[in-house]
Amino acid sequence: MALAAGTRGPVRALLLAGAGLGRRAAGGGGGDGARRFSSQRVLVEPDPAAGVAVMRFKNPPVNSLSLQFLTEFVISLEKLENDKGFRGVVLTSDCPSVFSAGLDLTEMCGRNPAHYAEYWKAVQELWLRLYLSNLVLVAAINGACPAGGCLMALTCDYRVMADNPKYTIGLNETQLGIVAPFWFKDTLVNTVGHRVAEQALQLGLLFPPAEALRVGLVDRVVPEDQVQSTALSVMAQWMAIPEHARQLTKSLMRKATADHLLRQRDADVQNFVSFVSRDSIQKSLHAYLKRLRQKKG
Amino acid sequence: MALAAGTRGPVRALLLAGAGLGRRAAGGGGGDGARRFSSQRVLVEPDPAAGVAVMRFKNPPVNSLSLQFLTEFVISLEKLENDKGFRGVVLTSDCPSVFSAGLDLTEMCGRNPAHYAEYWKAVQELWLRLYLSNLVLVAAINGACPAGGCLMALTCDYRVMADNPKYTIGLNETQLGIVAPFWFKDTLVNTVGHRVAEQALQLGLLFPPAEALRVGLVDRVVPEDQVQSTALSVMAQWMAIPEHARQLTKSLMRKATADHLLRQRDADVQNFVSFVSRDSIQKSLHAYLKRLRQKKG
Amino acid sequence: MALAAGTRGPVRALLLAGAGLGRRAAGGGGGDGARRFSSQRVLVEPDPAAGVAVMRFKNPPVNSLSLQFLTEFVISLEKLENDKGFRGVVLTSDCPSVFSAGLDLTEMCGRNPAHYAEYWKAVQELWLRLYLSNLVLVAAINGACPAGGCLMALTCDYRVMADNPKYTIGLNETQLGIVAPFWFKDTLVNTVGHRVAEQALQLGLLFPPAEALRVGLVDRVVPEDQVQSTALSVMAQWMAIPEHARQLTKSLMRKATADHLLRQRDADVQNFVSFVSRDSIQKSLHAYLKRLRQKKG
Repeated sequence: MALAAGTRGPVRALLLAGAGLGRRAAGGGGGDGARRFSSQRVLVEPDPAAGVAVMRFKNPPVNSLSLQFLTEFVISLEKLENDKGFRGVVLTSDCPSVFSAGLDLTEMCGRNPAHYAEYWKAVQELWLRLYLSNLVLVAAINGACPAGGCLMALTCDYRVMADNPKYTIGLNETQLGIVAPFWFKDTLVNTVGHRVAEQALQLGLLFPPAEALRVGLVDRVVPEDQVQSTALSVMAQWMAIPEHARQLTKSLMRKATADHLLRQRDADVQNFVSFVSRDSIQKSLHAYLKRLRQKKG
Repeated sequence: MALAAGTRGPVRALLLAGAGLGRRAAGGGGGDGARRFSSQRVLVEPDPAAGVAVMRFKNPPVNSLSLQFLTEFVISLEKLENDKGFRGVVLTSDCPSVFSAGLDLTEMCGRNPAHYAEYWKAVQELWLRLYLSNLVLVAAINGACPAGGCLMALTCDYRVMADNPKYTIGLNETQLGIVAPFWFKDTLVNTVGHRVAEQALQLGLLFPPAEALRVGLVDRVVPEDQVQSTALSVMAQWMAIPEHARQLTKSLMRKATADHLLRQRDADVQNFVSFVSRDSIQKSLHAYLKRLRQKKG
Repeated sequence: MALAAGTRGPVRALLLAGAGLGRRAAGGGGGDGARRFSSQRVLVEPDPAAGVAVMRFKNPPVNSLSLQFLTEFVISLEKLENDKGFRGVVLTSDCPSVFSAGLDLTEMCGRNPAHYAEYWKAVQELWLRLYLSNLVLVAAINGACPAGGCLMALTCDYRVMADNPKYTIGLNETQLGIVAPFWFKDTLVNTVGHRVAEQALQLGLLFPPAEALRVGLVDRVVPEDQVQSTALSVMAQWMAIPEHARQLTKSLMRKATADHLLRQRDADVQNFVSFVSRDSIQKSLHAYLKRLRQKKG
């Protein structure tokens, strides 16, 4: 019943200062409202009557989180945050059978340290914006959802997943020989608890829908053609809560976890840059990307 | 196997200093033992042979946590704590179909800041006393259990709830447009984990008994006429544990959470006072109370 | 995806400095490889082809954690840690129907403070080595597993338990009138969550296999004759994960909990020594041991 003084101000300032986003222009879109919020890689379908927008990831083939995608996504999200007409956003994919494949390895390979730093700041920014968002966020997981894709889903307030056993969800970083950073880990622990997280992270587990539901990685599993409609009806339930109280309560639950990264954001960037700059890592990323390209070709 | 040095001393001192309780006299009661512990609003039924007492909330119509109730409750509880003859207490309601409706909004409406501060200190005191109690506490939830009523139940070592779907339990503050303070949140997280707490607190969920059992908000659901007898037989199991070891173990589990509030008790009071003093909050509390009175009338 | 700089160095140094182990010689064993790792009380069955070893506790009658056992165990474990040929270890018992009965009360009774301190350091060392081990550890729980035995199982990455209702597992310290130290508690909370831990620790609960599985104290329950084979096939799954990434992820999950003890290791020793040196504790330990001996005789 006590209210913490609003802490959004300094946090937002930090976010903007840290990532240097917001200077790039966003691209086209669909209708009039859509044009205002959409970009080339993020389609926004606003429903002003409901105060809800659907954001569709459109970065084919697998919605990898390229720097360009991250930039456009954060700009679109910020526009919705700043528009009093919107209080809820559904995150979903426009690409068939993939929600998001996660980080874009080409951003981490054969570039210079300045690029790695810029990229990692954008990934941090994505997480901070989503995890602390004042909007109600519902993930409509209509495809595979590994690694960074799973992270995006975990930042939402509620997760609806398509009942298709070919789709899996999880932080599978160790399977690729890499390590999820501490704030990926914190987000997972907050969702499924310490023990499930420990095992899932060490083994890099990808959970099919039924298993994901069992361990609490998603909140609901529905037939594939009902994912978005279910997400929207869940949204209606969340929108019915007095706005200010809900936002402050969300912040009460998440602020400590976000502060953990905010306190050591620069160190986390340096850590990433020095890790990814290693010869051994560059070699294995090159080899991995080469295999991926041969697979496609 | 290592024992922390007793930390109860300073904590108790703080509790007493902080709340300035203990100067008011307690009222009547039933039998001889009951008279010693009971007050007008809290009936105490001692069973000295078993070392157990049943405390019945009697603040009709809905056992709201008025300043008077809180004061009488804490005095009765302290007497039981200080009497070596008692090691366990069952908390239950004497009012039909309500365990406790939670905080008393009339204490937060149309009064002066000094009153708000006194009230909030009493609420803190209630929680600290219960959460750190050396007694075994079992909640016999025989009615609706929202907000502050739920908080009282959550401080107990075990919760038995009546299997009546009309009764619900939860921290539903957001539904009223207000925000549970961080120590309500911490108590809930300790009981049901971070993810369930995040969703329950944001949505202000009230769980019917079966759901409450499923998420771990209560430990057992039994037919309504067996709530108290079940609570007493659970109590017997807890009383069989060597006392000193059990108390130290309870402190080991709960001390960090209580210290969180003890470290910032004054700031938490200031926070509450400035929040509740706002015009907007006063207006909405007035409106809400008016609707409540019209409903009754 | 970011990697913390290796933190094992200072931690290992502390471990070695703290316990002063490593100066005693290890005893016999079976084959050539076994001889290298085994001692009198810890049989090691290495499978170099698989990179896995099985460590069998052989300290009859109940594998109590005597100082000698702890010393031999830690030396054997350290040899396996330092041998690049081994990446996984299965912990199991060579004594019928007991995994380990936990701490050796005779080490805590009728000795001098220096002995108590040495003993407690060895218990801390056991936990730190196991909890932070770079090896994959799987517990094959083929017998009763109370107190310190349960602690050893909880440090593992995975727990397989024999489906025999006569075997139980749990931190039952309060039942003996003593209190589990905070790092026992932290390990339990990390495994089963705060609420289950609070109740289990206060009541000193010992869970039969089905209950242990339900609350997450063990990960799998199988027929008694399949415990070791199941442990080995689980091991194969964990061994398939890229080694370095898995180790860093394990450290990411466990470092904060281990640091909690490392920061106050000496105070924890002093605490134990002063507790166990009390007349009242010495008397009750003597009485308990006398009853145990009469039972056997």
